Amino acid sequence: MRFAVIGAGSWGSAVAWLLGSGGHTVCQWARNSEVACAINGQHRNPRYLSDVELPASISATLAMDEALGGADAVVMATPSSAVRTAAKVMAAYVGKGSAGAATPILLLSKGIEHDSGELLLDVLASELGTAERLAVLSGPNHAEEVARGMLCGTVIAANRPEVAAVFQEALACNSFRVYTSEDCIGVQLCGAAKNPIAIAAGVAQGLELGDNTAAMLMTRGLAEISRLVQAVGGQARTCMGLAGMGDLVVTCTSPHSRNRSFGEALAAGQTLADYERQTHMVVEGALACRSLPALAAKHGVALPITEQVRNLVWGGGNIDALLADLLERPFKPEFY
Amino acid sequence: MRFAVIGAGSWGSAVAWLLGSGGHTVCQWARNSEVACAINGQHRNPRYLSDVELPASISATLAMDEALGGADAVVMATPSSAVRTAAKVMAAYVGKGSAGAATPILLLSKGIEHDSGELLLDVLASELGTAERLAVLSGPNHAEEVARGMLCGTVIAANRPEVAAVFQEALACNSFRVYTSEDCIGVQLCGAAKNPIAIAAGVAQGLELGDNTAAMLMTRGLAEISRLVQAVGGQARTCMGLAGMGDLVVTCTSPHSRNRSFGEALAAGQTLADYERQTHMVVEGALACRSLPALAAKHGVALPITEQVRNLVWGGGNIDALLADLLERPFKPEFY
Repeated sequence: MRFAVIGAGSWGSAVAWLLGSGGHTVCQWARNSEVACAINGQHRNPRYLSDVELPASISATLAMDEALGGADAVVMATPSSAVRTAAKVMAAYVGKGSAGAATPILLLSKGIEHDSGELLLDVLASELGTAERLAVLSGPNHAEEVARGMLCGTVIAANRPEVAAVFQEALACNSFRVYTSEDCIGVQLCGAAKNPIAIAAGVAQGLELGDNTAAMLMTRGLAEISRLVQAVGGQARTCMGLAGMGDLVVTCTSPHSRNRSFGEALAAGQTLADYERQTHMVVEGALACRSLPALAAKHGVALPITEQVRNLVWGGGNIDALLADLLERPFKPEFY
Repeated sequence: MRFAVIGAGSWGSAVAWLLGSGGHTVCQWARNSEVACAINGQHRNPRYLSDVELPASISATLAMDEALGGADAVVMATPSSAVRTAAKVMAAYVGKGSAGAATPILLLSKGIEHDSGELLLDVLASELGTAERLAVLSGPNHAEEVARGMLCGTVIAANRPEVAAVFQEALACNSFRVYTSEDCIGVQLCGAAKNPIAIAAGVAQGLELGDNTAAMLMTRGLAEISRLVQAVGGQARTCMGLAGMGDLVVTCTSPHSRNRSFGEALAAGQTLADYERQTHMVVEGALACRSLPALAAKHGVALPITEQVRNLVWGGGNIDALLADLLERPFKPEFY
């Protein structure tokens, strides 16, 4: 099959590598000509995963029409904030299509559109027509490990099982286990909602609160995510899977996690501005801890940990006072 | 209130400390006179948590009748293998009681009775009469952290909410968050079934398979635990909670976890006999990986990871071949 991969960051490149290694033809759209030339000339992406040799079946282009022309299926791997813009450009080339005939599109970008609070598949559907062609992939998948053929698992959700199956068959191999799901809402919300919890886990780590505390934060974090997922129309059990617990555990425990290390910086007295100035990186969880409580409030759900992360990051709250607030919550049944 | 705590190991001592610190009177039953004398004389347990000062309201005894006489509630903290024997002795002192009047009993021991495959609350119920007096506690609770007042969460399940409430009120404090549940089966099975998964996580760690693999093992491990819980009559969502995911994460990631370090030893070519000879410790997961698949088979459920751990520990299987077997399983929906 011929795939278009939109985006040449580390995750897009790792998934292009998986497709190419599986015998598929890939045309990767890059924003940057240096990157596109190096992929075509040296079969390497000079900026991301630069030590991974890419199969010769992967080419790159700066032209969206060239990437999408003749593609049997599309993988979108832009930053979350660029999904709508990219979709507007793509619309001219992938067509609106009828439900059955439209080119299937797999979204790798995680999170929600922060201004509107919309889920990214809804953004895509509104820009590209039918939602029935869409799928979303999420799981504990560090690109660096995936592109080295290290074993991991992921989940692909789609409204139509045939669409999930297209991407499952194309991507699955012995080192990359692909499970399918019909819960697009759950898979997407888990990907967005894990990041504020990882900030909280980083704060706890910075305060040296211990292993028990870390496990409690992850578990109670997942409990609030599952309440949100259910309220928005997804399935709570998705939270128990690879997109939920799996990705949350990696994000909360890995020293390479940006959200977690931002939490450690907060515990050390830094602010978001300090951290972004030093690292030149966007902290997704810092945006999500504002947009998710707003979404949750619309659905009548509370996100106590996420809300305290928001108060800490944006309200300049005192860590001890915020923690004390959390601990003064009444004792309840575990699930309600 | 006056509590009897049966057992003076580290977890029994940590829970006695919680009760004593909460203003309750505790009489702790110990098997060993040196331990009992030190608790009474120096307010310290010389063998476990020896640097923790115990409140003066905690006394110890070698006599089961003295511990249980006049107790308003009982906490059982013996090793899992000693639960039936201890219950037989206790029966004379706690009475069978009518449902409403019987002294409530909280079980801290985790696991199942390996020979019979019975859940430990069923063992207690058969020895002590009514199941309605019983509760079980589980969660990510390293005793060492709990007895230092470090923050953590736990879940107490009971068939009757009033029984769970007795122990929730007695144990909960700002550093020890207690949630309640009615799913005794789920809470117990999670406690037993996490250990083989932790062995698998240790093997993966020993083979340096990476963070993604570890997260996949935990998540797919939890998926098989949840199938077992549901088949035996518990609730799958319990697996998403503190007794499930919470305890599993701590057990799979902490370098102090015995099951995990046994897995690392397996990856290095050691056998169970080697490991037990060196450490003088019982590896619970090595027993559970035999008894759980037998229980699962009775209920028509497969436990693929647990079964491969059993094949590795008891069948002398080759790690690479067992892993390859796991990876040849067909690709499926995430939950079914």
